[in-house]
Amino acid sequence: MAKRKINMGMVGGGPGSFIGAIHFNGAILDGQIELVCGAFSSDPEKSTITGKEYYLPANRVYGSYQEMIEKEKLLPEGERMDFLCIATPNHVHFGPAKMALENGFHVVSDKPLTFTTTEAEELVALVERTGLVFAVTHAYTGYPLVKEAREMIKKGELGKIRKVVSEYPQGWLSDPIERENQTQASWRTDPGRSGKSGCMGDIGTHALNLAEYVTGLKVTELCADLSIMVEGRPLDDDGNVLVRYENGARGIIYASQISAGEENGLRIRVYGEKGGIEWVQAEPNRMEVKWTDRPMEIKKPGNAYLSDLAQYNTRMPPGHPEGLIEAFANIYRNVATCIQCRLDGTEPPAEALDFPDVYDGLRGMQFIDKLIESSDSEKKWIAF
Amino acid sequence: MAKRKINMGMVGGGPGSFIGAIHFNGAILDGQIELVCGAFSSDPEKSTITGKEYYLPANRVYGSYQEMIEKEKLLPEGERMDFLCIATPNHVHFGPAKMALENGFHVVSDKPLTFTTTEAEELVALVERTGLVFAVTHAYTGYPLVKEAREMIKKGELGKIRKVVSEYPQGWLSDPIERENQTQASWRTDPGRSGKSGCMGDIGTHALNLAEYVTGLKVTELCADLSIMVEGRPLDDDGNVLVRYENGARGIIYASQISAGEENGLRIRVYGEKGGIEWVQAEPNRMEVKWTDRPMEIKKPGNAYLSDLAQYNTRMPPGHPEGLIEAFANIYRNVATCIQCRLDGTEPPAEALDFPDVYDGLRGMQFIDKLIESSDSEKKWIAF
Amino acid sequence: MAKRKINMGMVGGGPGSFIGAIHFNGAILDGQIELVCGAFSSDPEKSTITGKEYYLPANRVYGSYQEMIEKEKLLPEGERMDFLCIATPNHVHFGPAKMALENGFHVVSDKPLTFTTTEAEELVALVERTGLVFAVTHAYTGYPLVKEAREMIKKGELGKIRKVVSEYPQGWLSDPIERENQTQASWRTDPGRSGKSGCMGDIGTHALNLAEYVTGLKVTELCADLSIMVEGRPLDDDGNVLVRYENGARGIIYASQISAGEENGLRIRVYGEKGGIEWVQAEPNRMEVKWTDRPMEIKKPGNAYLSDLAQYNTRMPPGHPEGLIEAFANIYRNVATCIQCRLDGTEPPAEALDFPDVYDGLRGMQFIDKLIESSDSEKKWIAF
Amino acid sequence: MAKRKINMGMVGGGPGSFIGAIHFNGAILDGQIELVCGAFSSDPEKSTITGKEYYLPANRVYGSYQEMIEKEKLLPEGERMDFLCIATPNHVHFGPAKMALENGFHVVSDKPLTFTTTEAEELVALVERTGLVFAVTHAYTGYPLVKEAREMIKKGELGKIRKVVSEYPQGWLSDPIERENQTQASWRTDPGRSGKSGCMGDIGTHALNLAEYVTGLKVTELCADLSIMVEGRPLDDDGNVLVRYENGARGIIYASQISAGEENGLRIRVYGEKGGIEWVQAEPNRMEVKWTDRPMEIKKPGNAYLSDLAQYNTRMPPGHPEGLIEAFANIYRNVATCIQCRLDGTEPPAEALDFPDVYDGLRGMQFIDKLIESSDSEKKWIAF
Repeated sequence: MAKRKINMGMVGGGPGSFIGAIHFNGAILDGQIELVCGAFSSDPEKSTITGKEYYLPANRVYGSYQEMIEKEKLLPEGERMDFLCIATPNHVHFGPAKMALENGFHVVSDKPLTFTTTEAEELVALVERTGLVFAVTHAYTGYPLVKEAREMIKKGELGKIRKVVSEYPQGWLSDPIERENQTQASWRTDPGRSGKSGCMGDIGTHALNLAEYVTGLKVTELCADLSIMVEGRPLDDDGNVLVRYENGARGIIYASQISAGEENGLRIRVYGEKGGIEWVQAEPNRMEVKWTDRPMEIKKPGNAYLSDLAQYNTRMPPGHPEGLIEAFANIYRNVATCIQCRLDGTEPPAEALDFPDVYDGLRGMQFIDKLIESSDSEKKWIAF
Repeated sequence: MAKRKINMGMVGGGPGSFIGAIHFNGAILDGQIELVCGAFSSDPEKSTITGKEYYLPANRVYGSYQEMIEKEKLLPEGERMDFLCIATPNHVHFGPAKMALENGFHVVSDKPLTFTTTEAEELVALVERTGLVFAVTHAYTGYPLVKEAREMIKKGELGKIRKVVSEYPQGWLSDPIERENQTQASWRTDPGRSGKSGCMGDIGTHALNLAEYVTGLKVTELCADLSIMVEGRPLDDDGNVLVRYENGARGIIYASQISAGEENGLRIRVYGEKGGIEWVQAEPNRMEVKWTDRPMEIKKPGNAYLSDLAQYNTRMPPGHPEGLIEAFANIYRNVATCIQCRLDGTEPPAEALDFPDVYDGLRGMQFIDKLIESSDSEKKWIAF
Repeated sequence: MAKRKINMGMVGGGPGSFIGAIHFNGAILDGQIELVCGAFSSDPEKSTITGKEYYLPANRVYGSYQEMIEKEKLLPEGERMDFLCIATPNHVHFGPAKMALENGFHVVSDKPLTFTTTEAEELVALVERTGLVFAVTHAYTGYPLVKEAREMIKKGELGKIRKVVSEYPQGWLSDPIERENQTQASWRTDPGRSGKSGCMGDIGTHALNLAEYVTGLKVTELCADLSIMVEGRPLDDDGNVLVRYENGARGIIYASQISAGEENGLRIRVYGEKGGIEWVQAEPNRMEVKWTDRPMEIKKPGNAYLSDLAQYNTRMPPGHPEGLIEAFANIYRNVATCIQCRLDGTEPPAEALDFPDVYDGLRGMQFIDKLIESSDSEKKWIAF
Repeated sequence: MAKRKINMGMVGGGPGSFIGAIHFNGAILDGQIELVCGAFSSDPEKSTITGKEYYLPANRVYGSYQEMIEKEKLLPEGERMDFLCIATPNHVHFGPAKMALENGFHVVSDKPLTFTTTEAEELVALVERTGLVFAVTHAYTGYPLVKEAREMIKKGELGKIRKVVSEYPQGWLSDPIERENQTQASWRTDPGRSGKSGCMGDIGTHALNLAEYVTGLKVTELCADLSIMVEGRPLDDDGNVLVRYENGARGIIYASQISAGEENGLRIRVYGEKGGIEWVQAEPNRMEVKWTDRPMEIKKPGNAYLSDLAQYNTRMPPGHPEGLIEAFANIYRNVATCIQCRLDGTEPPAEALDFPDVYDGLRGMQFIDKLIESSDSEKKWIAF
């Protein structure tokens, strides 16, 4: 049997969505995945428009994810979608994910995983029961230099980790643009669609995920100060958190959507006994590596001096920049490889298993719970 | 009739090629183009391997571009390739380009356009005669901030242009790695495959193209000093050029492949009467805009303050980096749009016509000629 | 009467001191101040060595600050020192400061102001009683772009302030170098000479001072997590603090001396409703000014677009870097001007009054108290 | 006999001068040098004003350098000036320098050394005859990291040098501000005061000096294109030069005063067989060191990993920025040490001999001659 592309269906990503397009670009970039169907909007007309933009035949564009899953299931393997990409607002993550899993489809879901932690736990249980592939697009860990940081720390190059500063300032919600019906702002500041946290759920979870991924350490205690800076907004738009890690390291996690003038300032700094690393998402193709006893180094993708894992996640020779779509694509490529291996009955290579999964998704939900518990509490430390 | 994807065939890009993969990634990124056939190597076995990697059916993988063009021509419109992507070493650009044009196929060719200027002139004539779409991947002009620079200058924001410094240092040929059969180095330093210039043909032409694209000005005189720094290498690996522009502006163009430790350092600085711009390819998502009378500004993609053309060439909101694949994709998207418009019988929008074409390719060839003439001459200035 | 230089005496700054030399360089840079006497070390021999390096006559080099103050007092005005520079370790700040004030000498003291808050309060009372000039060298606020940030915020250019991140990572105490008798490390990690805090007292106080100076806002609540990362060290070498400002702004202050590989990473970011600023001490001659609605600007010293206060604190035209000695010199120049005005019976210009004073010193001491109270407490917020 | 400070007299540096103040600040910064007299302006009233600002007694403020040299000569050693600092416009360098040497005074002169090359040759002869100390303030080579670059290259760490790019863009003469009587602009664009070159004489000579100092190589051939971009200006305001070095290395030297928006952009890049360095004057406390086979390093002052020479030229621990005044001070400190050693009858340490001297000054003058010869010539290469 000829090798074939892996088939993707998409829920969400209709007109006005920006994340849908990124998922699409990232999924198809490497040529292993094909978009074969979609339920792009709860409005069938809008769904149809997007379906045409993706050159889908009319019979593979659906009015709802339920319809899509039911009908796709009836198609033969190789024709039907292999996995579902979920690019909807937060409150519509759980439904499609659950139904997809129950019907034998693998899943790639945007984050946060679900609307409530209970739902997230249910998905974990479902993934464990079905054994299906489930990825959550904490895509910033898809960058090659983030992989390099993780590998350096895993190998002990920095020594025991002592301090971690993970921050994610944005400024786009400095004004109450949700009142002008800006699409992104509207649902992200709406508790009914976003969940119980705004800023921290949307991007604070990325900061946590990045810190834990890079260090290989779990946060075990936290002390949070969440706030609403734009009057009348129902959800937090800024949050500052003291954290302690399982090995005794201390640190800070902060996120903000009212840091006026910041675009998308995810940055991580990790310090061990022997050295430190600093990586900034907006300039992802350089990482500072600082040493106590010799000059700072700047590592860049595509070079032979990098770890295998970092090299596995780059397409280009040195000096040819890759961006966030490529980081998404690194997750999708791994998912495609894992699904392909299941089709082939083989074991995926270790590198292909390196993507954020349902447990990362659950951890993000628990983090949101703990942040709100802490922020509302007089108690200094909350166990996590 | 349903809108359909534009079909691409590829020549070159077999095992070991890096540029083939970039063309592929860039072509398919936006979902408008599909790779339908290829002659990936002059070795049919290698061609087959690459064809499988791209999931092509065996009957669409050919042993030569001649065979491909002949057979594809027989297929019905919609099934056959619409355009040919040429990702071969320099000495195999002309043949496929010419044959494609003669058989009614549009073309996207890597640069330099051809092996000799005569060939380039022949292609220009063919394009003019056939009216087919022809793009040359001087892809660095595909970046959104390069578009912004061009638009700012076109609108006169910098005033009359006075000085242009366009430079392209690389260091990967600091050692004679061609003797160890490094694939890229081998053909690029071989006059039989690369042409009469090494470094200047390979990357100096990018520096020229970028300078002329951004400023909208032509170089009219030049004075070149090309050199071979690695003993025994038959082609230039470094070149420094004084240039004069049609409007009286002066400047420098230099390129190097022995600037040890440089990765891919294309950078342009343009100064007018009122201000200047500086853009560095390795960090493509920021551009310095310098003023005589107020603070320097940093422009970044995705922002509403940018020109329409810059915004047209971005996929992402501010702070979400795009890279070189996206710059390639901007060319491919325009080519696809132009071909689509021909299928539809409509006029493409002005933005879609903004890609490097056969005239840019010819100009690159002429530049190589003049550089060598100048470098060999005792005369100071050579008209260009 | 001819105008004369202002005379400085110094206590501390003997062999091995680095801060003594910076005080000296900063004091004399602008030619208004002359070092006329000193008690450079408690070891008279060492004091003599340093005195000779400063070309002082033997009779103006003293064995103790007590002796110096007593003897200088007997000299005629114009010959005797006008003010005392205190460049000793922390536990020897209070004694000389008190005795100097009591004997009519103005004072420039290094920070932290004293060993205990009680002492600091006593100095405040003495300054209020004597009316003498008293500066504390929180020298980082001497940089011209820090002045610019303050002026911008004062004028409301950023709108109401919402978020402040002030951080000061260093890495030089990553190893227990105090056990190898490294001079700086030995006293800074010794509770008997440094006081009850290590890192936070030494540099955390700078981070607070910078934040409050730039914003013009006071911290009113804090929640601190201080830690000792190098086993066996008796004082904190890292501290993370959540803070709340009087106007409702939130923020973070952190300092560290175990952030391996960091040199002297003081950085401040302030965000208001309309924009933000970011300034990094290690590259003091550029400041990012970020806006919600237009490109980021980079302000640089020496330019006409800067506020008067920023221009007053620069010596050079644009592009000619100034450093930390110049920032110290800005304080000293102001002190000299204030003393000169007293000699002349005139009022100093407003710009000359802009230096950190005894109240800033007291606030630093109170900050240390509150940090330790908070760090030891289960209570989340401590009023400050 | 007690060690004493070295006495400096100054010619030039009156009201409106910026370079006079830098010389003064740099000279006194380290406390070894005292300004004892001056002829600050050809207008005695202006000279008096400046003299008072420097707290000089009226009898040491002179109406002309001739008067100063004659009268100072009569004072006893220890009271009279030891050396003359020349901070006048270019056409008044030679006179004071010559007379000072003839009367036994050491000299520190600003650059370019003289108005004509003949004068420069005369000064060289005089220095050789008198054996006096003579420094020329090509102060950019005073930075510690420039020293480090020189040491690295001298030790062969970069291998044989192949390519050197030394550039010095400024933008302050983008408009014809000399017509508004801006002091600096007026004399610098006036052939009667500046000499036969404008931009290249003023700052192009710095770019040459830096390149030759860092590499230890001489330029032996050049090809220049000088131009006047602001209509009506009598001297070049932009110049681009191809250069060849004695060892076969190639390169570019360019300078500009119409690169709108550039402040003071001196930058050097040197590439050898094994690696390269890049240093930018505006951010002098970091230097990129690039390697063919490992990550780029960033070297910073004050670190133990630096060469002795670099460490000798720094005052501060890592992360505490020094600027251009400190670079000037490094020259002055060496001059003071050399004069002190003569007073003591001892040999100065090797580090103290490392300052730009009369031969560097002569070379700058010859460079100007050759640039103009080349720019006016149809011949491509001019021997230098």
